[in-house]
Amino acid sequence: MLNFQNIIEDIYHDIIKHKNYGEVASYIPELASVDSEKLGVCLTTVDGHVFHVGDWQDRFSIQSIVKVLMLSMAYSKLGGQLWQRVGVEPSGTAFNSLGTLEYDEGIPRNPFSNAGAIVVSDVLIDLYDDPRQAMIEMVRAVSGDPSISFDPRVAASEKAEGFRNVALANFIKSLGNINNPVDDVLNLYFDCCSMAVNCEQLAKVFLFFANHGHTTDGSLVLLNPSQTKRMNAIMLTCGFYDEAGDFAYKVGLPGKSGVGGGIVAVLPNHFSIAVWSPRLNEKGNSYRGLSFLERFTSETKLSIF
Amino acid sequence: MLNFQNIIEDIYHDIIKHKNYGEVASYIPELASVDSEKLGVCLTTVDGHVFHVGDWQDRFSIQSIVKVLMLSMAYSKLGGQLWQRVGVEPSGTAFNSLGTLEYDEGIPRNPFSNAGAIVVSDVLIDLYDDPRQAMIEMVRAVSGDPSISFDPRVAASEKAEGFRNVALANFIKSLGNINNPVDDVLNLYFDCCSMAVNCEQLAKVFLFFANHGHTTDGSLVLLNPSQTKRMNAIMLTCGFYDEAGDFAYKVGLPGKSGVGGGIVAVLPNHFSIAVWSPRLNEKGNSYRGLSFLERFTSETKLSIF
Amino acid sequence: MLNFQNIIEDIYHDIIKHKNYGEVASYIPELASVDSEKLGVCLTTVDGHVFHVGDWQDRFSIQSIVKVLMLSMAYSKLGGQLWQRVGVEPSGTAFNSLGTLEYDEGIPRNPFSNAGAIVVSDVLIDLYDDPRQAMIEMVRAVSGDPSISFDPRVAASEKAEGFRNVALANFIKSLGNINNPVDDVLNLYFDCCSMAVNCEQLAKVFLFFANHGHTTDGSLVLLNPSQTKRMNAIMLTCGFYDEAGDFAYKVGLPGKSGVGGGIVAVLPNHFSIAVWSPRLNEKGNSYRGLSFLERFTSETKLSIF
Amino acid sequence: MLNFQNIIEDIYHDIIKHKNYGEVASYIPELASVDSEKLGVCLTTVDGHVFHVGDWQDRFSIQSIVKVLMLSMAYSKLGGQLWQRVGVEPSGTAFNSLGTLEYDEGIPRNPFSNAGAIVVSDVLIDLYDDPRQAMIEMVRAVSGDPSISFDPRVAASEKAEGFRNVALANFIKSLGNINNPVDDVLNLYFDCCSMAVNCEQLAKVFLFFANHGHTTDGSLVLLNPSQTKRMNAIMLTCGFYDEAGDFAYKVGLPGKSGVGGGIVAVLPNHFSIAVWSPRLNEKGNSYRGLSFLERFTSETKLSIF
Repeated sequence: MLNFQNIIEDIYHDIIKHKNYGEVASYIPELASVDSEKLGVCLTTVDGHVFHVGDWQDRFSIQSIVKVLMLSMAYSKLGGQLWQRVGVEPSGTAFNSLGTLEYDEGIPRNPFSNAGAIVVSDVLIDLYDDPRQAMIEMVRAVSGDPSISFDPRVAASEKAEGFRNVALANFIKSLGNINNPVDDVLNLYFDCCSMAVNCEQLAKVFLFFANHGHTTDGSLVLLNPSQTKRMNAIMLTCGFYDEAGDFAYKVGLPGKSGVGGGIVAVLPNHFSIAVWSPRLNEKGNSYRGLSFLERFTSETKLSIF
Repeated sequence: MLNFQNIIEDIYHDIIKHKNYGEVASYIPELASVDSEKLGVCLTTVDGHVFHVGDWQDRFSIQSIVKVLMLSMAYSKLGGQLWQRVGVEPSGTAFNSLGTLEYDEGIPRNPFSNAGAIVVSDVLIDLYDDPRQAMIEMVRAVSGDPSISFDPRVAASEKAEGFRNVALANFIKSLGNINNPVDDVLNLYFDCCSMAVNCEQLAKVFLFFANHGHTTDGSLVLLNPSQTKRMNAIMLTCGFYDEAGDFAYKVGLPGKSGVGGGIVAVLPNHFSIAVWSPRLNEKGNSYRGLSFLERFTSETKLSIF
Repeated sequence: MLNFQNIIEDIYHDIIKHKNYGEVASYIPELASVDSEKLGVCLTTVDGHVFHVGDWQDRFSIQSIVKVLMLSMAYSKLGGQLWQRVGVEPSGTAFNSLGTLEYDEGIPRNPFSNAGAIVVSDVLIDLYDDPRQAMIEMVRAVSGDPSISFDPRVAASEKAEGFRNVALANFIKSLGNINNPVDDVLNLYFDCCSMAVNCEQLAKVFLFFANHGHTTDGSLVLLNPSQTKRMNAIMLTCGFYDEAGDFAYKVGLPGKSGVGGGIVAVLPNHFSIAVWSPRLNEKGNSYRGLSFLERFTSETKLSIF
Repeated sequence: MLNFQNIIEDIYHDIIKHKNYGEVASYIPELASVDSEKLGVCLTTVDGHVFHVGDWQDRFSIQSIVKVLMLSMAYSKLGGQLWQRVGVEPSGTAFNSLGTLEYDEGIPRNPFSNAGAIVVSDVLIDLYDDPRQAMIEMVRAVSGDPSISFDPRVAASEKAEGFRNVALANFIKSLGNINNPVDDVLNLYFDCCSMAVNCEQLAKVFLFFANHGHTTDGSLVLLNPSQTKRMNAIMLTCGFYDEAGDFAYKVGLPGKSGVGGGIVAVLPNHFSIAVWSPRLNEKGNSYRGLSFLERFTSETKLSIF
């Protein structure tokens, strides 16, 4: 068996020795003020081991990674009907593009673009009495940490500056694919994105996707096994915007990134791994996070391919 | 262990009982004249077993499936340099689209679009003394059938009717990403696409991608293990045009389809499977081929996710 | 000299005899409830004659025609600097398209698209203490009718339903080309579009553009002669969305249409003509309005070409 | 009456005193080798006067200006039926763009894009026994110069390097809007574009469009008056690619430019004017040609607006 602790420590120490690249997200002050040189890693396995290194206890903004959780909450209740509202195809465009919507009649190409997640947010309002509560309870239960919460300052800043997302939501509304008031939909979306988590919590939550949709102790079920596979497929093809092909090619794991610098990935039946480092490459994905994962799957030869 | 023979026979018999849908490719007479109700399947495992059912011995036109072999031949010689000429991102557009090229300066988004395969064809001319010979010898050796060959009638029809591909090749040439004369590049591309194979031969050739890049007896090496993984990743994200996400979602295997009605898919470390049925859905992928594979991975629970 | 009164009466009576086509704008109730069979015409000449026929005294919603007046008010104060904020090129796309903005960094292709007019609205807020007052006073003075005003019900409905325009405004704001709060910009835009005018008032206001920018009695100056020519050029190339070429081809006059069914056109140095009929063709331009003007310029041989 | 000779001489001398900008077209050697500092002007009036200055006797490659003559030849025979094959709308895109064709089913937006002119070329082959002969005879007759001819070296170079146009023609063929063999269509197109003319000849030929479609002596009729107006309208909205709006705005005359550095414009009922200067701005229109015409219409106050 591989010594995961040694492996992640070796890669960690090697990466922090090398020059860091990219820019910290700066469109809101709460993200801009993060220490750009942080690097945290946590790996959790389906047989109950946890390995970590670096700044794995620091909390950061989950941002787009939460789209996977939002989608899971909608998919577990609606099943395949959900795909009438949002597709599962990679879009070939940037995360916040409006381009293809105009031709697709308001059906976002996939649920991990901002447009897609906004539609999922609208779906959650219809499906849950209190979707915020449902989301936060699930994350707290899985991670075992009742202190996890949304960050109201981050959410407020997103609302104040999120003209592009306001544009997306209104555009989709004009095309008929949003039922609820735009402000309600965006508020839920911004709140979810503002959740503060650390690497260990994130890895634990995503262990669902490595473990057929339930917690390793079987106490909590997010999705059934078939749905879980399909979530992994969507993460693989759509989880990294217009860098999804590159991530599949270099890392070879289903995963999702966020503009807060987090990346989480899973090897079905084996493990989940969360990496956090704030500087982003030009596609909006963590520079050191990508490096770490590429090194990790190359050295361990662990990938779905 | 699963009884693959029983499983594929059961699915086969169930599928042929149900109504068939879609249209046989009709843009050239050689494809249009195929018996639309054929259905053949062959599964080969890395430990040497072969299972088949239906019209698995009938030869059909390999068409776009050959793009994987062309890419492998180029990638094995050039390595990562190849990605300066063609990307690895899903394009979100149809197989023969010109749209994004205009913004991407002649670099096709991925090697499995027609544009991408035409660039790979240009690369092969520079890399091999006789790329046709190299291709056909490789396929013959792996499949153990020296009678496999290009179909000159199919290639001639493609050349006579292939205005869209002529447009693509000249467009890319105008943008500087084709070195050789356009006619030479297209002739190689059309010749490769014309290869006639049956399901067993196709499955055997694609066993490379389930077996770290070499034949099960180790006698032939197409790619190294790392390259093989990456080929699988590209198949997963780009193998089915703008239905790639859907195939990943429903089938969950790296694979590639062709307009001749063939689909081939692999489960790394386990097996390759070739399915052939000529009627195509509106995305250009075999209707019954997709149904078969979706059923197969659902029932066996064998997928990369 | 041509007998304009006879000519417009003949065309009027011929057109109302023939079947009417198209649909009344129905996205807000105030527009949907208009009598679809109305047809009004008024022609005013630079030498002081006025000719009219049909429902020329009925007021209707000016809608996009007001974009010409908004632009004139901005252009007269800012001059050529204005073109740093909005282009003068036909876009080849529909009036409410977001498509090209993404590539043009928030600079709308022309001031008569919704995007362009929204930017002009933002400019007016910066240029005028009370842009609504300035607009309405100008129109009242020129038309000699102090009762002209914005229609608060129309404006309110537009605000309640205008998701697409909210999307456009926020998108442009996200790209940096709107200075003021989005709501302020849109409120001004919707208010201006809600103005209720009749054919005579509209023709009189647009006589500016046939008369070097000033009223025929010289009492009021909207633009200087050079600016006036340029406004006419922009109307000719951009006044009818993706039907601008067709209008130039068939009618051959600078002009502007609105979704309320109005069309106004000018022959520089000669006349302005306003036509109103609520049913719109699929491009959003008045069906009978276009027919009338095409007949009128064909029979009189009066066009700029 | 204006003293045209003085005016064009004054502008000429002022312009050559100032710095020249832009680049000579260099995609074929025949165009690249032209003396970049040349500037020729010729103005011909419908009442028979001719004024010229500078290098007005030098011949240059007519290039895209010939598209107006090709269209006239097709339109005079086919009438409005022609618009089933090509539109009359400005495209908002560059002269050689393939983008919108994909959505428009092979119907080019307008006849002055390369795509549009290629379709017109196909139409001419169907309409004329010898379209080359018809074209050259018409130009010779109107200009009174039997030595005008196509330049075989220019045409040969265009054929050898014209990958983009080959792409366009094959793309349109694949979409069903070209009847004849692609090579025949392109050969005619390239031949027409290769015609060598000087400013006087060009001005004389375009006097058709200022004079209701016939020569001033009435001996030759190219188009009827209604068709002539419509040709002027198309020139105005589509004659300068994605700079058409700007030309209308700054110059205010129907016209057409070519990559050889020529620009020709007309004031209906008054005059035609040809300007030639090889350096092109980034939109592919003659830098000094545009400057000259902008100055000319500003100073004379002669424009259609």
